Amino acid sequence: METRYDCDSLIAFAQKLFVKAGVPAADAATLAEALVLTDMRGIWSHGVIRSAHYLQCVQAGGIKPAAELAVIAEGPCYLRLSAQGGLGIPSSMRAIDMMLERASKQAVFVTTMNHSDHFGAAGLYAQRLAEHGFLGYAMSNTPPMMAITGAGARAIGNNPWAYAAPGSKYRGILFDICMAVVASGKVQIAMAENKKIPYGWIADKDGNPSNDPADVLKKGGFFLPVGDHKGYGFALMVEIMTGVLGGAGVLGGVHAWNKQPGRDANTGQCFVAINPEYFGGLAPFRAQIDHVIDTLLQSPKAPGVERILYPGQLEFEKEAAARQHGVLLTDASLQELRAAADLVQEPFSITPSAE
Amino acid sequence: METRYDCDSLIAFAQKLFVKAGVPAADAATLAEALVLTDMRGIWSHGVIRSAHYLQCVQAGGIKPAAELAVIAEGPCYLRLSAQGGLGIPSSMRAIDMMLERASKQAVFVTTMNHSDHFGAAGLYAQRLAEHGFLGYAMSNTPPMMAITGAGARAIGNNPWAYAAPGSKYRGILFDICMAVVASGKVQIAMAENKKIPYGWIADKDGNPSNDPADVLKKGGFFLPVGDHKGYGFALMVEIMTGVLGGAGVLGGVHAWNKQPGRDANTGQCFVAINPEYFGGLAPFRAQIDHVIDTLLQSPKAPGVERILYPGQLEFEKEAAARQHGVLLTDASLQELRAAADLVQEPFSITPSAE
Repeated sequence: METRYDCDSLIAFAQKLFVKAGVPAADAATLAEALVLTDMRGIWSHGVIRSAHYLQCVQAGGIKPAAELAVIAEGPCYLRLSAQGGLGIPSSMRAIDMMLERASKQAVFVTTMNHSDHFGAAGLYAQRLAEHGFLGYAMSNTPPMMAITGAGARAIGNNPWAYAAPGSKYRGILFDICMAVVASGKVQIAMAENKKIPYGWIADKDGNPSNDPADVLKKGGFFLPVGDHKGYGFALMVEIMTGVLGGAGVLGGVHAWNKQPGRDANTGQCFVAINPEYFGGLAPFRAQIDHVIDTLLQSPKAPGVERILYPGQLEFEKEAAARQHGVLLTDASLQELRAAADLVQEPFSITPSAE
Repeated sequence: METRYDCDSLIAFAQKLFVKAGVPAADAATLAEALVLTDMRGIWSHGVIRSAHYLQCVQAGGIKPAAELAVIAEGPCYLRLSAQGGLGIPSSMRAIDMMLERASKQAVFVTTMNHSDHFGAAGLYAQRLAEHGFLGYAMSNTPPMMAITGAGARAIGNNPWAYAAPGSKYRGILFDICMAVVASGKVQIAMAENKKIPYGWIADKDGNPSNDPADVLKKGGFFLPVGDHKGYGFALMVEIMTGVLGGAGVLGGVHAWNKQPGRDANTGQCFVAINPEYFGGLAPFRAQIDHVIDTLLQSPKAPGVERILYPGQLEFEKEAAARQHGVLLTDASLQELRAAADLVQEPFSITPSAE
């Protein structure tokens, strides 16, 4: 993973693959930029590693590559959208575009979206809201992959949830997690690299402890919720905000990474923007975020700890390094990107960074 | 703990204690009802066990018993309040009262409150919003008692956060947690009962593992966040929603359970109401919450598990039993209520349930 790749040419290459599969050029660019930005932040589980999967869904007819976002209803502080079976990432980015001006005139604004699909890293959208001066939230439900407390089977999605708050001296806080002990993407990377995972992350299909990624990814096992009933309750909150509030599929009504023609995944997403201008002003808000970060970073360290971090710090550092020196990709990411190129019969060609 | 007590007479007794300390009768009733309702739900850590502490703060001049709630600013979908150094529970209940009508005309409504104090169980307010047909959130910051990832000291509050969603066939979902592995109230009960706690809940002041409640409650130790960086990020989210957005104290700016005259705790609270009428209608929302609960309860059980529960189920069952048979109190609750009576020189007199 020591080779760095030129970000712009990687984006251009990924965009070309999506265009060849029938995604309109602007949406393909949005999608490629989002995936590469996610890799730049070091969240390789949600970057270009997903390209082949998205293309497979489009080619199989499970995702409509040119679906248009539709407004179901709207009012001064809400917007209800349908992605109409389209790609989750471009649909979600367009949803954020639609929110920005509306939310600038309100103290709080909620957007829901149904008939969507996998939206990549939740932090993309929360951070985009933060970059426009909001305290932003983004969340999505997913097909059930996780147990709930007491269950010996998949019962709820390992639902991602993110928030971001802008600072002034600091770029801000960006927190992006799922509700299992570990993100499924990390297990996918372990499987792709033929590695075992620690016990405590997953169970096999009978509920036994397992360290084999295949047990959860291929053999009907499940993820375990973080903090047991706490992860259960957080995942359920996301399910309510997305599936229930957004009129999308709930629980098993969200269809697993969809390759079935004519039946969309019906994933639900929800985005919330809180406008600091109505709560004492954006400048004081940014200053307080700086103060919070300064205070946290000054905490005495536990023995053996080198750095105390604030949420998002590593991601922002990696993004800055990628902008300067090019983006790092994992072997699994390269392998999946190669598979994506094969799917659309495009010669594999990405450019190492000049440095 | 087998004796049950008559709920109404317990409320009347607790109210009398607060009135004797100078709390206006209506606020004293609100406070007493909230504490007893919390005990009825089996959350003894946040029920009448807190009475003596609240009275000590009032008697010491750290809480103003007759402070009036002040509006700092308001608009169509927000309300910024100051509790002006008053009691957290009556101030928060009044904040919810002020939200209800306003929120009924909006898709989403945010209320913040600063210069407040300990607000009891977060679930009280979330559930109250749910009972009026909202998806309700309630949260508060608290004095730092918890480490963050990598820190060997108290860095952030063990911040409580709750949400509640109304059902139809079911009363609904009520989820009420703090961000540490365990609620501080549970450790307080263990200490009052002279019991050890499991390793992994807390660390001593030097960051070493400990099973002694006194290490965290008396000797400068700290709680550990649930899921490590996940609990850290959730606690920080609450800090931003309450301390930063509400213009209250943040982190060490929230003063520990305040007994210092003229300096209020400056705790911040935040309440959010999302109105399902704007997201497809309340009746369909309730039906979907029922569907979600039904689906979760039908999950296959793990070996050895008797029941799968939904969040709030145990609390609602205990509340129903308490309404029928009287409320159970822990020894620690009885001891603290007796101490409360002594503080205001009121003879201790609570009535066992007739049954």
